[in-house]
Amino acid sequence: MKILVINGPNINMLGIREPEKYGHKSMDDINAELTEIAANLNIEIDFYQSNSEGEIVTKIQQSADEFSGIVINPAAYTHTSIAIRDAISAVKIPAVEVHLSNIHAREEFRAKSFIAPVCVGQICGFGENSYKLGLKGLVNYLKQSTEVI
Amino acid sequence: MKILVINGPNINMLGIREPEKYGHKSMDDINAELTEIAANLNIEIDFYQSNSEGEIVTKIQQSADEFSGIVINPAAYTHTSIAIRDAISAVKIPAVEVHLSNIHAREEFRAKSFIAPVCVGQICGFGENSYKLGLKGLVNYLKQSTEVI
Amino acid sequence: MKILVINGPNINMLGIREPEKYGHKSMDDINAELTEIAANLNIEIDFYQSNSEGEIVTKIQQSADEFSGIVINPAAYTHTSIAIRDAISAVKIPAVEVHLSNIHAREEFRAKSFIAPVCVGQICGFGENSYKLGLKGLVNYLKQSTEVI
Amino acid sequence: MKILVINGPNINMLGIREPEKYGHKSMDDINAELTEIAANLNIEIDFYQSNSEGEIVTKIQQSADEFSGIVINPAAYTHTSIAIRDAISAVKIPAVEVHLSNIHAREEFRAKSFIAPVCVGQICGFGENSYKLGLKGLVNYLKQSTEVI
Amino acid sequence: MKILVINGPNINMLGIREPEKYGHKSMDDINAELTEIAANLNIEIDFYQSNSEGEIVTKIQQSADEFSGIVINPAAYTHTSIAIRDAISAVKIPAVEVHLSNIHAREEFRAKSFIAPVCVGQICGFGENSYKLGLKGLVNYLKQSTEVI
Amino acid sequence: MKILVINGPNINMLGIREPEKYGHKSMDDINAELTEIAANLNIEIDFYQSNSEGEIVTKIQQSADEFSGIVINPAAYTHTSIAIRDAISAVKIPAVEVHLSNIHAREEFRAKSFIAPVCVGQICGFGENSYKLGLKGLVNYLKQSTEVI
Amino acid sequence: MKILVINGPNINMLGIREPEKYGHKSMDDINAELTEIAANLNIEIDFYQSNSEGEIVTKIQQSADEFSGIVINPAAYTHTSIAIRDAISAVKIPAVEVHLSNIHAREEFRAKSFIAPVCVGQICGFGENSYKLGLKGLVNYLKQSTEVI
Amino acid sequence: MKILVINGPNINMLGIREPEKYGHKSMDDINAELTEIAANLNIEIDFYQSNSEGEIVTKIQQSADEFSGIVINPAAYTHTSIAIRDAISAVKIPAVEVHLSNIHAREEFRAKSFIAPVCVGQICGFGENSYKLGLKGLVNYLKQSTEVI
Amino acid sequence: MKILVINGPNINMLGIREPEKYGHKSMDDINAELTEIAANLNIEIDFYQSNSEGEIVTKIQQSADEFSGIVINPAAYTHTSIAIRDAISAVKIPAVEVHLSNIHAREEFRAKSFIAPVCVGQICGFGENSYKLGLKGLVNYLKQSTEVI
Amino acid sequence: MKILVINGPNINMLGIREPEKYGHKSMDDINAELTEIAANLNIEIDFYQSNSEGEIVTKIQQSADEFSGIVINPAAYTHTSIAIRDAISAVKIPAVEVHLSNIHAREEFRAKSFIAPVCVGQICGFGENSYKLGLKGLVNYLKQSTEVI
Amino acid sequence: MKILVINGPNINMLGIREPEKYGHKSMDDINAELTEIAANLNIEIDFYQSNSEGEIVTKIQQSADEFSGIVINPAAYTHTSIAIRDAISAVKIPAVEVHLSNIHAREEFRAKSFIAPVCVGQICGFGENSYKLGLKGLVNYLKQSTEVI
Amino acid sequence: MKILVINGPNINMLGIREPEKYGHKSMDDINAELTEIAANLNIEIDFYQSNSEGEIVTKIQQSADEFSGIVINPAAYTHTSIAIRDAISAVKIPAVEVHLSNIHAREEFRAKSFIAPVCVGQICGFGENSYKLGLKGLVNYLKQSTEVI
Repeated sequence: MKILVINGPNINMLGIREPEKYGHKSMDDINAELTEIAANLNIEIDFYQSNSEGEIVTKIQQSADEFSGIVINPAAYTHTSIAIRDAISAVKIPAVEVHLSNIHAREEFRAKSFIAPVCVGQICGFGENSYKLGLKGLVNYLKQSTEVI
Repeated sequence: MKILVINGPNINMLGIREPEKYGHKSMDDINAELTEIAANLNIEIDFYQSNSEGEIVTKIQQSADEFSGIVINPAAYTHTSIAIRDAISAVKIPAVEVHLSNIHAREEFRAKSFIAPVCVGQICGFGENSYKLGLKGLVNYLKQSTEVI
Repeated sequence: MKILVINGPNINMLGIREPEKYGHKSMDDINAELTEIAANLNIEIDFYQSNSEGEIVTKIQQSADEFSGIVINPAAYTHTSIAIRDAISAVKIPAVEVHLSNIHAREEFRAKSFIAPVCVGQICGFGENSYKLGLKGLVNYLKQSTEVI
Repeated sequence: MKILVINGPNINMLGIREPEKYGHKSMDDINAELTEIAANLNIEIDFYQSNSEGEIVTKIQQSADEFSGIVINPAAYTHTSIAIRDAISAVKIPAVEVHLSNIHAREEFRAKSFIAPVCVGQICGFGENSYKLGLKGLVNYLKQSTEVI
Repeated sequence: MKILVINGPNINMLGIREPEKYGHKSMDDINAELTEIAANLNIEIDFYQSNSEGEIVTKIQQSADEFSGIVINPAAYTHTSIAIRDAISAVKIPAVEVHLSNIHAREEFRAKSFIAPVCVGQICGFGENSYKLGLKGLVNYLKQSTEVI
Repeated sequence: MKILVINGPNINMLGIREPEKYGHKSMDDINAELTEIAANLNIEIDFYQSNSEGEIVTKIQQSADEFSGIVINPAAYTHTSIAIRDAISAVKIPAVEVHLSNIHAREEFRAKSFIAPVCVGQICGFGENSYKLGLKGLVNYLKQSTEVI
Repeated sequence: MKILVINGPNINMLGIREPEKYGHKSMDDINAELTEIAANLNIEIDFYQSNSEGEIVTKIQQSADEFSGIVINPAAYTHTSIAIRDAISAVKIPAVEVHLSNIHAREEFRAKSFIAPVCVGQICGFGENSYKLGLKGLVNYLKQSTEVI
Repeated sequence: MKILVINGPNINMLGIREPEKYGHKSMDDINAELTEIAANLNIEIDFYQSNSEGEIVTKIQQSADEFSGIVINPAAYTHTSIAIRDAISAVKIPAVEVHLSNIHAREEFRAKSFIAPVCVGQICGFGENSYKLGLKGLVNYLKQSTEVI
Repeated sequence: MKILVINGPNINMLGIREPEKYGHKSMDDINAELTEIAANLNIEIDFYQSNSEGEIVTKIQQSADEFSGIVINPAAYTHTSIAIRDAISAVKIPAVEVHLSNIHAREEFRAKSFIAPVCVGQICGFGENSYKLGLKGLVNYLKQSTEVI
Repeated sequence: MKILVINGPNINMLGIREPEKYGHKSMDDINAELTEIAANLNIEIDFYQSNSEGEIVTKIQQSADEFSGIVINPAAYTHTSIAIRDAISAVKIPAVEVHLSNIHAREEFRAKSFIAPVCVGQICGFGENSYKLGLKGLVNYLKQSTEVI
Repeated sequence: MKILVINGPNINMLGIREPEKYGHKSMDDINAELTEIAANLNIEIDFYQSNSEGEIVTKIQQSADEFSGIVINPAAYTHTSIAIRDAISAVKIPAVEVHLSNIHAREEFRAKSFIAPVCVGQICGFGENSYKLGLKGLVNYLKQSTEVI
Repeated sequence: MKILVINGPNINMLGIREPEKYGHKSMDDINAELTEIAANLNIEIDFYQSNSEGEIVTKIQQSADEFSGIVINPAAYTHTSIAIRDAISAVKIPAVEVHLSNIHAREEFRAKSFIAPVCVGQICGFGENSYKLGLKGLVNYLKQSTEVI
């Protein structure tokens, strides 16, 4: 089992810009922690970040043969990208949508997701832990297990 | 640390009705598993279910002195209850909203939550695991820890 | 065959308040007449009224083992209760929605029903006869008969 | 007392097309059964079907002197015809709107009726029995009786 | 110069039904008065009424070679017929839309006209005089005169 | 019988600005022609123009004792002024709303009138003749005559 | 003359939770002050609070024979309860809607009231004084007096 | 302490026009009664009425140095004037919005206020007593007292 | 294989009216060219035009036994006719919707089609060639061929 | 070349009220600086401020013969005045709309301008410099120069 | 004459993923067939696919000097890309929008196209034949021929 | 001080395509003129253009350490890109949004900007001068000066 973690636009700025708002951990810090969790779970994990909608689409397409599941934080593309939605539908790899912030407590346009409807589920508001919970939820889903790992 | 798990209307029917849709585990089964997780985390846990919006409001009010956090599946009241939203705002106990199903993949009126904006975060789509992930996310939040327990 | 007739909020005021608008017959009068019809049809009938959305949800849940069908006038909850809708969906007992008045000839918000989409059908505008027609329509439906009893 | 039953566009295809969806009874079969019911009630009954909005308007206008009441299934015109609404308003003959299917459980545009607001009431979802219940409801209304015939 | 007066659905019921609301004059009475006005203006006039949207479309098409202008009361089709709008656009005969009642003081859906945007102008609220004012306004328009006849 | 003609903002620019669009006649030219018509009808007529919503409101209030009817072209205030609507409602003098251009063939926001619902009727699209037709329609209305003067 | 003061969900938390936002006075403190005012006015007063929509409906129904008027702060149910609206309509006891905060200066969904349209009037934004002003306004209304007591 | 009472468009017609609807008291009568109340409270009071949005804006601006609070019935401008809203925001004098009628029980466009969000609160539906309650509420607010004067 | 080409309202005016806008070819000219294409394809073809929604519904119903497919230009009824949609659904004959003009480049109401959702596909913007492409697309569809004939 | 600078409602309060929000410079201070810029550009400049929509309309009308261009900050009327829009359209003097604050970063109703569509352009968010940039942009436009002066 | 065929995001997955839904032919298979058609028509053809909105924009810009027309399936960008719309407008090369599926029979957001309004026309629902029909329609358009090639 | 000028999709076509609409100057011409202005102001300036939303996001992220301010014409992405908005928010470099055309005088969807709310201000409608004014406004803002350079 190999999981792909995809981060959308501006997530690469995490910890670098606006630390008072999003914390001091960078995306790489989070990825390192996710790698550790994956190791404990005996699964492989890989990471991808892009600011480009099209590149994310391409990455999802390419993941079809290599990955069993996707944890995706589409960031701003959550609310505008039908292309990413269609890519997830096409590859049919189970995906989990995660968000650092609580998208229901921000501007109204952030509450709507084009991508969540084609995902297993959505997790938001737990900061970096959203990724960890999402990873665990996804692995559980893939193992069709109710015992949260 | 003591956590209250609140279930809204019709969740008490889980496993009894429509097992082909929501699985064979009952709400009590899930609660038992959550109890086990709580024990492992060395935290206390209690459960409450009601079909009544007003009773849920009252329970939230009463939880102020006893509980450190709330995991709530408001079910149908997610989309219609400002009273539960106001109760959570009033008691100021951190709450996590969870849903068995992916509310973004159902009728459009189920995508909107009156309650999520006053919660820490929202988790949906993982079946019973939504509760477990929510519990873990909440405990982490309360411990201000990024180590997902 | 046993039918449950459920009346929502304020229907218990029928005949007591605003008789010039809704007629002089009380809810009990109507129930008595429905009992008579049921007797003629050789079916059992029972009645329930509550002003509480949650109690109606609970009653519907409890009816699963006892009743073959439900005639429900959700009154004001018609337009606001997803919880009652979900309860009917969960128990999977055929239900018929009835209204004393023509909900299409009143305020615009009364034309929309959250509950009708999970019912067999809807009858409105015939005063107390809406119940009688609804009862007959329901019994016919349950008997899979096209001969209106 | 003489009742006119009006059927709108495509109802003439009933039983001929899509029997698996709407049953094998044709419009004529239903009319025959309605005739029998009318005979039992000692009332006269007549039938009219047209695919044309204008012809239905004309028929309603002409019914003013001959009929005491109208049972109408406006079919697709339910949602688009102000002309039929105005015709019913003009002749002031009590009318009952009926639908074979549950219009609240289909496309959203089928839930809105331009015609129901000027009718006594609306019945939907009972298949051919919607007509029978509608006929009985109408006759009761005309007799100002609460005893459902 | 020859003018065609077109009346839409239910206008043929004028004076016959609801005289307390629309007055005792029938459509024929109004037409007779319009004929007299036309005679005084030395213009020809003809009349057409139909309850059918399609027939009105056809009549407008046929009027292209015979008439210089059209006074039309589209009645209910005002708010629903793009076909009549397109017919007027196609024949390019100047048309004036008239209404007996003040369409801005009735149900909200009556305030919108699909047809007025392709007409010279619109007159409403003057009862039968709406036709007379419309006829005069149209003749003036055709004569490119500012002297109201 | 004395009629007040009220012109709203920018009508005083008529014939001065944009003659190729609205013609070369000024508001005074139109008023002179309306005076002539009034003389022929043996009625008195007076004129008022203001660019100020408040002044128009005041003028309408003051007209209560002096005038029998009002012809008003509210111009831009048609679509924004509830104050003028309320003034006409308060004085209860019959008013007719007129527009030079066809408000249904321009920007969408010009199709809605706050004022027309409290008027006898509305006439638009006939250029200066809208005033003349409006004056005649109003005098007819006041005389309760169907003979267009 | 006897007045009933009804408080909706979460008002019982007043002064206990969020005192920096709503002040340190509890609901009981306010009620005590209202009792004093009532005593000065020589009227009787009683109090009711519930978090349950259904219980509030029932209380309003029961008040019909005992109370002359109602001061109600429906709190969250202001924006969601048609049942409470219908109960007030049914009992026909004059009611005044009050709110501690200015509902027009908060989330947009709080500006709309289902209940105000069936009340005498609405008062909001004066903190606990909204109740006192509401009580005085109601007593005045019942005495048909313009002298504010 | 000096209070300014501002009345918007058409309030000067009170008691003169439509007495059967708004009562026989004129604006001056109400002002006289308010003067009496003010005298009893040992505060100064002044009055201003204008039909002009701009003049009301100017008056509010000028009131900054002279008045401690404003009671304003913006009438029709309630629903259309951002300028008056901005003026109140600019001068930062506490203001109370009052309405004679219950704006929630009239046309839908009257339920929305541009001005209430920048006021202390809003009172509607108590006829002339809305002013008196508003004055008392405002004085209380300015005295930061919970004892309604 | 026999194909029916249906033209809706005003298409019969093609080439006669507004040739500068729609070209000089009449509907008959187009039909002649379609006949030629059909001959080359060894299929039969027939034509029908009506300005009446009801007649088009009837024609579609009658086509069930005679035709294998329908090419339909519903013209104005595209945007308003649920009856034609239902007729196509009922007969279950594959249909292709065609438009002379690009409906996405005109008034906004022309972009929405009630009929396209029950068709195989939609072609617009190619003038008379829309018909030819539609005919070829339909024949291909019926032959389940990907080789465009 | 002579430019008119028009300021709408409440701009006269600039620097006097809310200096912490809008800075300490008054409108006169800004006008003085604009005068200086104009002198440097060898153009004449004049200023006008009014709180009245009608007076602004009148001023624009009168400016037709005297001014070559208008810099206008319509303030609150930006969002509500069709009359000012029509005045600018009528006089056909190039106008530039300016705003002190960034109207896109405030309440949603401030993002929409009725006036900008008839202006050369719009500048917002630069405080007093919005005027200076607007003046320069306008002069450039009038000189048909791309060299910003 | 040289035609460019552009495919948007995820079209490169055709035949590879979800063959049961979209058929077994890959994009390359379709392109090969289009090449054959082009050869028969004696025109040149080239192909481009990208998942990136920006790259498609760039490709369209570059096509200006090389291609006479464009067949474009913008896929998901149909509903979200104003940039592609502007690119097509800028190069002024005639373009035809095609879709494999019937976009009117899917989610509501797929019915709206930002791109179709600047194209010659739109074809949808014919699977791979949509391209072939689109190519033929485009070539015909460029040849200003009504003889479908 | 170093300023970055960012141009979005299709701006690179300026002067090349549609010169009659946007003028003959190319983007490079404008940049050359901006360079000259910058030189006069003793500030550095750099330029970036991309048709790709993702590349613009990346460029903004990279500009954080090098540039003091950004002048951005997001072109089509103005109305669709939350990603660019978030990038500007993240880097916290003051940005000014500029547009060649008056976006309020075009299609309605062009009036809304996702990006303007996180910018200092917006300038539109002055052609290439929008950039120059934007540059000057930005430099002034950065210098916290009110003297327009």
